[in-house]
Amino acid sequence: MRDFSRDHRWLSLNTATVRKQGDLTAIVEACARHGIRAIDPWRDQVAAVGLERAVRAVKDAGLELSGYCRGGMFTADAAHRIEARDDNRRAVDEAKALGAPCIVLVVGGLPQYSRPGSAVTKDIAAARTQVHDGVAEMLDYARRAKLPLAIEPLHPAYAADRACVNTTRQALDICDALDPARTGAIGVALDVYHIWWDPELMGQIARAGKDRLLAFHVCDWLVPTKDILNDRGMMGDGVIDIRSVRSAVEAQGFAGYSEIEIFSNDWWGRPMDEVLQTCIERHRTAV
Amino acid sequence: MRDFSRDHRWLSLNTATVRKQGDLTAIVEACARHGIRAIDPWRDQVAAVGLERAVRAVKDAGLELSGYCRGGMFTADAAHRIEARDDNRRAVDEAKALGAPCIVLVVGGLPQYSRPGSAVTKDIAAARTQVHDGVAEMLDYARRAKLPLAIEPLHPAYAADRACVNTTRQALDICDALDPARTGAIGVALDVYHIWWDPELMGQIARAGKDRLLAFHVCDWLVPTKDILNDRGMMGDGVIDIRSVRSAVEAQGFAGYSEIEIFSNDWWGRPMDEVLQTCIERHRTAV
Repeated sequence: MRDFSRDHRWLSLNTATVRKQGDLTAIVEACARHGIRAIDPWRDQVAAVGLERAVRAVKDAGLELSGYCRGGMFTADAAHRIEARDDNRRAVDEAKALGAPCIVLVVGGLPQYSRPGSAVTKDIAAARTQVHDGVAEMLDYARRAKLPLAIEPLHPAYAADRACVNTTRQALDICDALDPARTGAIGVALDVYHIWWDPELMGQIARAGKDRLLAFHVCDWLVPTKDILNDRGMMGDGVIDIRSVRSAVEAQGFAGYSEIEIFSNDWWGRPMDEVLQTCIERHRTAV
Repeated sequence: MRDFSRDHRWLSLNTATVRKQGDLTAIVEACARHGIRAIDPWRDQVAAVGLERAVRAVKDAGLELSGYCRGGMFTADAAHRIEARDDNRRAVDEAKALGAPCIVLVVGGLPQYSRPGSAVTKDIAAARTQVHDGVAEMLDYARRAKLPLAIEPLHPAYAADRACVNTTRQALDICDALDPARTGAIGVALDVYHIWWDPELMGQIARAGKDRLLAFHVCDWLVPTKDILNDRGMMGDGVIDIRSVRSAVEAQGFAGYSEIEIFSNDWWGRPMDEVLQTCIERHRTAV
């Protein structure tokens, strides 16, 4: 397991962590100021400054990317399926322009939440079938662009409105079905927030292996959690044994960035420099 | 599958649903008034009126019980383990006095939340081992009292602070380990709120079979969920396909009560009669 205590060379910042404090160019500048070498930007943040300007900012700052957030939301009724497909193709093109190593996929929950306007349903099994088919279709396009897809299993608390892939096992089942040869074209993005509770976690990380471990995200689970979406904790402030999970992932050969992604009304209310400074400290002591 | 549309003879009320509107005797009276035939009382509500008075109230009203809430909270540091054991033995004695068909077990999360004062830890795997051992110990006592134990898997959102048994598979693994002969001494209490998201749900219900299906609870998952503990929905107001789950449970031979358990700041703020009337309507139309 790598020693993170002496520096933060393997820290990547998911730009949602400071999305309220500044636009993408301001975040890129702050990362340069703090010696942060990599980011994972969100599409809406890229769109807000324009793709070309985002590409230039990242390049000028000498930043790497640890991913691109996000593709997915595959679940839709028939009237919204083309929209979903085209939207995901644009995500691939943007990720390619930005030099992202993979696209993180949040696959969607029930169609009415994933693609608003879709007909209301409670059929989560059907949603899961749609996800399988949607990933398969996107994978064809992404393979041609040589852009790996990283399915992110989301905590079961988001099964209805964000992602009906809720365990690492489920995500890997899709990978195995679509890419049995383990070509590297598809894998998983594991965020400790979503998976820490899973009794099968360690076994599934071993099953994933290096080929499928495309991204590793950290934050913490707070008790109590005051908001189901936007009360994620800074590493060390919650109950997740982050180091055990990182150790398991690295035991498989994962050697990439440890990406910090914190959706938090609390941290969004603090100055960007304070947040980044705290991220760096906690990366060294709690990750 | 039973037809619930014509009456509510298979409706049981978990008394937490109206815990803010009156004490246990008031709830028992209201159930009699509304033709509700069964309840599942909570220990704190029983204690508040006294066990003898609770027993008499239930008997005088001619009510059955569909369970007794709750035993468990097995996770504790060494200094709190005897307390946990004795507390659970008292729960068995109370359940016996009340004529409950089973005790619902909420097994506990990390020890510091399950048994406050216990040393702080992030080791959820160790907590799960403690749960296994704690259930085993309680089972010895409960078998002698001929009181079945019903392990309730709780939604992964409660893994830290309430229960580290978070899937039906996990609960059944404990049952199979402790009672391979399927004697009826141990099984599961399945609440749609906790399990609806699980991609393995239907397979695990089939695995459970009639022997292990000791209780069935209903409410609904709201989108958005405003409070992680106390914003459960009235059946029909959320995204859960309740009827599919009930159909699967009944296909295994479950023929007991459909117990309504709603923790909700919203419903706790309404008059008891309105809540019960709505429960009855929704039992007929949405369960």
